[in-house]
Amino acid sequence: MVHTLDLVALEAGEDERILTPEHVGGSGNDWKVTMRRLRGGLSEGVVTLDVTHGDLRYVVIPTRGFGLWKAWHRGEEFGWQSPVRGPVHPQFVNLGEPSGLGWLDGFDELLVRCGWESNGAPEYDAASGRLVYPLHGRIANKPAHAASLTYDDTTGQLSLTGIVEETRFHFTKLRMRSTIATTKGARRLVIADEIENFSASPTAVQMLYHVNFGRPLLDGGSQLVAPVERLVPRNAHAAANVASWPTYAPPVPGFAEEVYFMSLYGNAAGQSHVLLKNAAGTHGVSLLFPLQQLPCFTQWKNTTAVADGYVTGLEPGTNFPNPRSFEAEHGRVVPLGPGERAPFTLTLELHTQSAEVQAAEQQVLEIQADRPTQCFDQPQPTWCS
Amino acid sequence: MVHTLDLVALEAGEDERILTPEHVGGSGNDWKVTMRRLRGGLSEGVVTLDVTHGDLRYVVIPTRGFGLWKAWHRGEEFGWQSPVRGPVHPQFVNLGEPSGLGWLDGFDELLVRCGWESNGAPEYDAASGRLVYPLHGRIANKPAHAASLTYDDTTGQLSLTGIVEETRFHFTKLRMRSTIATTKGARRLVIADEIENFSASPTAVQMLYHVNFGRPLLDGGSQLVAPVERLVPRNAHAAANVASWPTYAPPVPGFAEEVYFMSLYGNAAGQSHVLLKNAAGTHGVSLLFPLQQLPCFTQWKNTTAVADGYVTGLEPGTNFPNPRSFEAEHGRVVPLGPGERAPFTLTLELHTQSAEVQAAEQQVLEIQADRPTQCFDQPQPTWCS
Amino acid sequence: MVHTLDLVALEAGEDERILTPEHVGGSGNDWKVTMRRLRGGLSEGVVTLDVTHGDLRYVVIPTRGFGLWKAWHRGEEFGWQSPVRGPVHPQFVNLGEPSGLGWLDGFDELLVRCGWESNGAPEYDAASGRLVYPLHGRIANKPAHAASLTYDDTTGQLSLTGIVEETRFHFTKLRMRSTIATTKGARRLVIADEIENFSASPTAVQMLYHVNFGRPLLDGGSQLVAPVERLVPRNAHAAANVASWPTYAPPVPGFAEEVYFMSLYGNAAGQSHVLLKNAAGTHGVSLLFPLQQLPCFTQWKNTTAVADGYVTGLEPGTNFPNPRSFEAEHGRVVPLGPGERAPFTLTLELHTQSAEVQAAEQQVLEIQADRPTQCFDQPQPTWCS
Repeated sequence: MVHTLDLVALEAGEDERILTPEHVGGSGNDWKVTMRRLRGGLSEGVVTLDVTHGDLRYVVIPTRGFGLWKAWHRGEEFGWQSPVRGPVHPQFVNLGEPSGLGWLDGFDELLVRCGWESNGAPEYDAASGRLVYPLHGRIANKPAHAASLTYDDTTGQLSLTGIVEETRFHFTKLRMRSTIATTKGARRLVIADEIENFSASPTAVQMLYHVNFGRPLLDGGSQLVAPVERLVPRNAHAAANVASWPTYAPPVPGFAEEVYFMSLYGNAAGQSHVLLKNAAGTHGVSLLFPLQQLPCFTQWKNTTAVADGYVTGLEPGTNFPNPRSFEAEHGRVVPLGPGERAPFTLTLELHTQSAEVQAAEQQVLEIQADRPTQCFDQPQPTWCS
Repeated sequence: MVHTLDLVALEAGEDERILTPEHVGGSGNDWKVTMRRLRGGLSEGVVTLDVTHGDLRYVVIPTRGFGLWKAWHRGEEFGWQSPVRGPVHPQFVNLGEPSGLGWLDGFDELLVRCGWESNGAPEYDAASGRLVYPLHGRIANKPAHAASLTYDDTTGQLSLTGIVEETRFHFTKLRMRSTIATTKGARRLVIADEIENFSASPTAVQMLYHVNFGRPLLDGGSQLVAPVERLVPRNAHAAANVASWPTYAPPVPGFAEEVYFMSLYGNAAGQSHVLLKNAAGTHGVSLLFPLQQLPCFTQWKNTTAVADGYVTGLEPGTNFPNPRSFEAEHGRVVPLGPGERAPFTLTLELHTQSAEVQAAEQQVLEIQADRPTQCFDQPQPTWCS
Repeated sequence: MVHTLDLVALEAGEDERILTPEHVGGSGNDWKVTMRRLRGGLSEGVVTLDVTHGDLRYVVIPTRGFGLWKAWHRGEEFGWQSPVRGPVHPQFVNLGEPSGLGWLDGFDELLVRCGWESNGAPEYDAASGRLVYPLHGRIANKPAHAASLTYDDTTGQLSLTGIVEETRFHFTKLRMRSTIATTKGARRLVIADEIENFSASPTAVQMLYHVNFGRPLLDGGSQLVAPVERLVPRNAHAAANVASWPTYAPPVPGFAEEVYFMSLYGNAAGQSHVLLKNAAGTHGVSLLFPLQQLPCFTQWKNTTAVADGYVTGLEPGTNFPNPRSFEAEHGRVVPLGPGERAPFTLTLELHTQSAEVQAAEQQVLEIQADRPTQCFDQPQPTWCS
């Protein structure tokens, strides 16, 4: 039987609300959801949903675009340590700063969506120099206006749903319905998003999942295992180290980020799979996603000192995070007619045992099979702005 | 006898406060005011005053410059459906965005004041390209710091008063005292604002009432009845359809807005009157205002699809909403010496019966009488930037 | 015995918390600290710490960078009347506004720190015209994420500690630990700040204490007594009145601010001392600080009308508040290696009796002794941008 509960906004006098199967007319303690309003510093007013479901725990941030802050499996943390003390309330993030870099003030999540009007590097008007599209778009700093919880006591599936809009009168009218689902006993988070153009006029969107891992998973010798068709370094700096793209360095103070753009292979169903594993091969994380929805994959290596945010971003997207106009020129936007919807599905699988890592790696290798990888040693004009 | 009650800010633990005649030492149930703190999404933290007085209901938003969100007469709604999900808290509106268009993120009110340092289109510094004046000014996103309620049990008049400031050290020092009054049995909202320059140095201000109507009032065949002296299309696009300025189209997806600037005639007392009525002539709304205070009238036709905000703006102002410098050049700013105050009065009358619409139309026609309308078929250099 | 109490953030349902010696396991009523969440207008959500300790009272604003709002000695107020109705919550201050002047919307404190990436005038990119560094930096609008109270019942010293960060991923990683201490019976506030670069890469910071006084202390004939080594007017306008730099005018509507840059002499321990006293010599305030930490002193004379903010700023800093690049060119930034900390100490002494003023003046004169003052009558190229 399926039970649904509206997660009505916290009220005055309420900083915490605990929900268990009882609250949806069930019983037992298979899961617990704590809705919490954070207090103090840059987190003042942020609402989080802290979910425990079997051996999985994860924290969703409705206030920050229904992103995913951190996850744990059997008590082991997945995420990263940003120098930013978050989660940061959007009131403290100035996306309109002329540099277009204000987004960086709020960046500390495991999974942050970038989009939807644009999702890449800041873009400025050529004539006036004025900012047109801020870094990574607006959606990570838009609060969900509705959320609900659904529990199916037959399948043991628990899911959280949130609705977030990116709307500007005369311009964008986009709405996302996002569902994050887990099943009892599993170690997967299945994220199913659907973006609707609720305008009566056509538009075009971009979506990128900026999925980030640092300590303890990421270490010197960590590897990205991916079924790569083509790989292109974003710029000359990344080109210099292209040969070592699959391998991560230990923390190096002052390390300058390296970015690689890729197209991946998928399985017969069109699903791709990338694996990040630690040096010892005892821990890892898999990202699974359909290439039809998310055809572009970006690897961001930022193996700077831990204090500065030792992290890698694994970024399946509709495009590469170049400026919006460049991507549109090369057809990497998703047209959405009036009322049309674009679905995006992304699965995260957390591995905390060698056998799990090995099984995941085997799956990636099977996708690659004997298909070739074309690895460019220089930026390519149609992929790199 | 006149009773006054300070509407002290809602406290921790208090999301709603209901006020009735009892709270001012009276009795009966002639009116009810609900003070409410909204929760969730972009509305988080917005405080509203929801007033019922006889057959009238209206919602004031102290958090958004003491604007008017919506109104109802005998249960019929006046206002519009913006694609923006509001009312939007100013923390989510970035007026400083380099484009100057951040204001659009919060735009969903029936009546929103524009001003006071500037009230028109964004203006950029010619040399640097930097934003100088953002679209429609700052005041719609300044919260009132004080509010009160006054009830006169002899006349049956209920009024709400709010105080809003637009202040920047070294620059603007302006304070508005706004009173919105209704009388038992009437279907009028009388808005009496007074802007004070509380600086010891002179300044100049602009004020524009952006009064907006969509469904259900606005429909294909709706008409604006106005005692027009001169009418000028804002640009070539509006010029192409100037002949049909009084008539509204049904919702048309992708419709590009048309704007007409007008000077109006007034009655012997200098009061003008414009009427918006639906196609059937069964419903309408009148705006009454003194031409000495608000000599410029702007009609904004935005008959796009309902999903995108099918709406017309009726905009009495001290000027036309061109960039600030252009308006100053043409003398359309209000100089305010040290301590000087400028009063503005605007009355909204809600018509929900044909006879009321007809009576209002008759009043407009009497103002026009046999005076001529000069209708330009092209933008004019002193009116159009 | 030393007692410490964490000042955990106010929760839902809690707008006020009163702390006395009892709360740290002591007794008596030597002090009282009221933690308060402000409501209404631009102050909505601001948390203040209102401290009474013997004859001293002062209000700290954790929400605004742990600045100091106002202080009182024996009931007499020190601070100023800004036209800005504060304290203003950072959500209403747009530091990213293209002009770089958004900071002015929140400016009403007795002591506001400027820094740390930059602390001076706005700076724009020469090529694009885009804002690079906003006026006076970001820290006054960063909320403290932690605060505590310490009471030593042996010495009678009460201190408040707050932690504030200025962090941007890929850029700044700075953390301040600030302690404001008072001792029973004294009329001194001792502010001890320490800024840490918690990055693994080197950086450079700027700090300026913008300490502001108006009515009732400041009046026509007030004087700044300072042990000046060199004095330079910031611009031609200030140069025109350089001869009268030590003396303040009464409020003059429309007065254009005058700024003087100075290097000061110190005592044998390297401590300098400046005194602001009223015309009658009955009231004053002293600022004491080590020249090694704060070698540059700026006097800001803004003797405009009281309504517009009649005020003087006494500003010990690591540099002069010119644009960041100019100051860096002239070596006026503080390099901070990975993990390095820079301490800053500033003491305010409040004088409410002639004898106290005279004693302070004597101390300043002793520092000057017979050392010469070099007073330039024109801006100098290495000091003035």
